[in-house]
Amino acid sequence: MPYTYETNGAAIYKESFATIRREADLARFTPEEEPITVRMIHAAGMVGLEKFVHMSPDFATAARAALANGAAILCDAYMVSEGVTRPRLPADNPVICTLRDPAVPQMAKDMSNTRSAAALELWRPHLEGALVAIGNAPTALFHLLNMLEDPDCPRPAAIIGCPVGFVGARESKDALWEAQPVPSLIVEGRLGGSAITVAAINAIASYAE
Amino acid sequence: MPYTYETNGAAIYKESFATIRREADLARFTPEEEPITVRMIHAAGMVGLEKFVHMSPDFATAARAALANGAAILCDAYMVSEGVTRPRLPADNPVICTLRDPAVPQMAKDMSNTRSAAALELWRPHLEGALVAIGNAPTALFHLLNMLEDPDCPRPAAIIGCPVGFVGARESKDALWEAQPVPSLIVEGRLGGSAITVAAINAIASYAE
Repeated sequence: MPYTYETNGAAIYKESFATIRREADLARFTPEEEPITVRMIHAAGMVGLEKFVHMSPDFATAARAALANGAAILCDAYMVSEGVTRPRLPADNPVICTLRDPAVPQMAKDMSNTRSAAALELWRPHLEGALVAIGNAPTALFHLLNMLEDPDCPRPAAIIGCPVGFVGARESKDALWEAQPVPSLIVEGRLGGSAITVAAINAIASYAE
Repeated sequence: MPYTYETNGAAIYKESFATIRREADLARFTPEEEPITVRMIHAAGMVGLEKFVHMSPDFATAARAALANGAAILCDAYMVSEGVTRPRLPADNPVICTLRDPAVPQMAKDMSNTRSAAALELWRPHLEGALVAIGNAPTALFHLLNMLEDPDCPRPAAIIGCPVGFVGARESKDALWEAQPVPSLIVEGRLGGSAITVAAINAIASYAE
């Protein structure tokens, strides 16, 4: 007997987002922030994620304005860059991941760091005014913070800092939140990852649900 | 002042996995299943995920044998196929995602279903003996179950069924678990997603941690 189920994508989204808004505690988010948080909960399949989501007061507006102005989106992993829904982007924004650049393995050796961190050195020509999205590697977020310690390093418009895991994830996000070199979004603690990060980008790109 | 942090990838993995094994309740998993569950927890950044992980008794061995024999890995989303670590694959296995095939949008219209579900129709030539990995769309998992209702449909070797979310995710995984047309892995309930699915594939591909 064939299985019957909801096959209309728009209806699935609508019901999903209504469920999230019914169950999640979204009161502390502004109207600019709320759709970002809702989409992150959607990607994680987890009501309660909102407790760990923190945004600088000017994050949502700065990130949206950057994309509207054509900013590049710089991603630490292909699972992030592949997840960005291109038709949602307001200005056909470039989506860049440098992790597989052939120079990266040797750079990582020379820096005694991970390839994820080394790959960020190749972001420098694209960094000014960009939306940075780190959804995988704590070492990438730490290295970005160190790059931004140099006042001559170009400034991104906003940073999504959502690395995931058990070593350095919490610490790198705490460091970003304390420094806030530019408007930032973090998921506090161990939770994070590419799906949540992609959801934030897609929500910033468009209010369409 | 520059931030200091662990920059050695191998050390990060080792400490992460040790933390997971210290904190998670892994007693009910066999030695074949345990590394799969550990890597899924790692990708989610969430001890406790193990409570929702269920594998058919022959899932781990069937899935590993399939990959060793060169089986294709069929993925419902590019965030899944992009996450598979190619050097871990035992037989240079093809990793296939058909979601962006130009035929898919029209097929979805004709089927009155999502593009994620329609794309599975293009799996048929690759399905026999494959490792199926559904990490995004409940409609894809439901459609796969309907395809397998036809005794003439080729059989995959094993199914990773981890769609995520609020509409159909729980229901499609419950349906897979009840039917178990082939050895299967599910994450019960709303949790799931591409990162967890990729982690399961990467753990099946190699015991290396």
